[in-house]
Amino acid sequence: MRIRPYNFYAGPAALPIEVLEQAQAEMIDYKGIGMSIMEISHRSKEYEEIHNEAQQLFKELLKLPAGYKVLFLQGGASTQFSMIPMNFLSPGKTGNYVMTGAWADKAIQEARKFGETVIAASGEVNNYMEIPSISDIQVNPQKAAYLHITSNETINGSQFHSFPHMDHVPLIADMSSDILSRPIDASQFALIYAGAQKNLGPSGVTVVILQEEIIRNIPAHLPAMLNYETYTQHNSLFNTPPVYSIYMVNLVLKWIKQHGGLAGLEKRNTEKAKLIYDAIDQSGGFYTGMVKPNSRSLMNITFKVHNEQLEKLLLQKANAEHFIGLEGHRSVGHLRASTYNAVPYEACQALADLMIDFQKRNG
Amino acid sequence: MRIRPYNFYAGPAALPIEVLEQAQAEMIDYKGIGMSIMEISHRSKEYEEIHNEAQQLFKELLKLPAGYKVLFLQGGASTQFSMIPMNFLSPGKTGNYVMTGAWADKAIQEARKFGETVIAASGEVNNYMEIPSISDIQVNPQKAAYLHITSNETINGSQFHSFPHMDHVPLIADMSSDILSRPIDASQFALIYAGAQKNLGPSGVTVVILQEEIIRNIPAHLPAMLNYETYTQHNSLFNTPPVYSIYMVNLVLKWIKQHGGLAGLEKRNTEKAKLIYDAIDQSGGFYTGMVKPNSRSLMNITFKVHNEQLEKLLLQKANAEHFIGLEGHRSVGHLRASTYNAVPYEACQALADLMIDFQKRNG
Repeated sequence: MRIRPYNFYAGPAALPIEVLEQAQAEMIDYKGIGMSIMEISHRSKEYEEIHNEAQQLFKELLKLPAGYKVLFLQGGASTQFSMIPMNFLSPGKTGNYVMTGAWADKAIQEARKFGETVIAASGEVNNYMEIPSISDIQVNPQKAAYLHITSNETINGSQFHSFPHMDHVPLIADMSSDILSRPIDASQFALIYAGAQKNLGPSGVTVVILQEEIIRNIPAHLPAMLNYETYTQHNSLFNTPPVYSIYMVNLVLKWIKQHGGLAGLEKRNTEKAKLIYDAIDQSGGFYTGMVKPNSRSLMNITFKVHNEQLEKLLLQKANAEHFIGLEGHRSVGHLRASTYNAVPYEACQALADLMIDFQKRNG
Repeated sequence: MRIRPYNFYAGPAALPIEVLEQAQAEMIDYKGIGMSIMEISHRSKEYEEIHNEAQQLFKELLKLPAGYKVLFLQGGASTQFSMIPMNFLSPGKTGNYVMTGAWADKAIQEARKFGETVIAASGEVNNYMEIPSISDIQVNPQKAAYLHITSNETINGSQFHSFPHMDHVPLIADMSSDILSRPIDASQFALIYAGAQKNLGPSGVTVVILQEEIIRNIPAHLPAMLNYETYTQHNSLFNTPPVYSIYMVNLVLKWIKQHGGLAGLEKRNTEKAKLIYDAIDQSGGFYTGMVKPNSRSLMNITFKVHNEQLEKLLLQKANAEHFIGLEGHRSVGHLRASTYNAVPYEACQALADLMIDFQKRNG
């Protein structure tokens, strides 16, 4: 095997090597049954064990209070962008969104097809390089069906550092890019959703964690697969689930538990990000972070080099030294290091070292 | 490794051992990149190659004429049950369905939410143990938005042996359980769809093959992820696709090509099924096939033993001798052997031998 590159892809993204090794070992013969987990019925006891264990681990890691369900869906966060208004945005009510960047915008654009939306706060004035402050979020609790936030914006590299709380307004969060990266108070949220391919596992499964009481008034005649009740009533086994993706997520959840749970990961993720942010902040302007410090993401670190030519040279040097995925999103440019849960400390150390060394030679 | 069982699961189902071995070998280091295919961007050249190769192989194996597109979706056939009427069933038009059993019924029930449906023919009079004859299928071409069939009913074990053709009425087929098991004239179909987990690969991806001209009048304001145009316009890369499922499907497609394409598989599948149907038909009534011979499936062979006690005993004996998944669906009972593409000839031979031997001892 070639040396494992420093993988900073924004998603699909690095997985823990221990998880990949276990998946490899079990590929053809899952726990002595002589078959792959991909080859057996989703009603088999072997699969049901994985399904239930993964749900249990979400409950445990997030310390979910009673009354929450963990669901497995397909179609990514993009499908949730439709399901949320279709399930919850009843006539006369409003879907309230905090506009923080490209992903919040996609959620809003989709919701506009199904009902009235309100921008509860927007980071537009700062070109989305700052998360609106909690006190700026305005919601009319008489009209609001829900308040939606995007807890981490992968493209800009911004992240909520605390969450809004409104009496009588269910809070919904797209946590695709920072779920299980830090402890949260899950009881603040009526619904959390996340595509798996950043912090949870491979693409192909979307995790939805919801308070059962919010699905009491779902409209009739929704497409069955876009109705949350289909999943709550059948324990996400109404039809064949994405078995292998859920199997991989379960392995990742066990890995998270072994690494100290969410407190352990937050410590590790904070240390990892600090290495890179320090290289930026101590560069005397050679590097500049894109996002205001109060809104910086622990998951996606966006920055630029003071000189465009040098920036290209740094990227070339990084690619030559087995760093992968450091190009910024095409809509923003510059550089982005995605430092999700499974990205090793050593990779972040190597990137910080590279940045410091590059500055020394070119500063 | 334990001996590989004879896997007759109805889905998820057996995969070719060669495919699993390759997936195992490449799990941690895909083609020397030092990462798993699960860990890299869906915009990477490595993934794009797989995506495009899989589309190309579908075109080649099915000999698709110009004007067809191959799409990768999520959510299984159950999501297609909604998408078809949402995309095509315009007001004043009818969705026409051939009612052949549980899966056709699910498609119809879902379509009723979105418009007027018509049962174009039904096997109800024969308790769905016979596919309606093509000449009995009645459609009003002035009103019909489409005619929908379920090419193979996994629960009953029935299969269309030829397909209806109506001038000016697009034919749509759920081929989840028999896609790529035999050559078809794809130009007869406006849209073919299939969940992958029976004949194509692991669960988690749905293949849709459609004639581009049928998506000219899709209504505005559909959920983006339930609009076929979202997939045609972005080459199924509007959002992150289920990368690993598509990777596995691509390996299975290459395996099919190596095994003589669809003509090769039809020969093999016919021989496999014949072993078991012969054991039934030559048993002098000890075994009875559930489906009328003109509608028998090459994919799901349903049968019973003349005596309930003996049937239980046979199942026990089969389980003890490493046969897996032979219980009939809970709604039908008795026995079912699913003999999809990847089920080896040897497994079918072993089952036929077991049945013949069991009859000798208990007949």
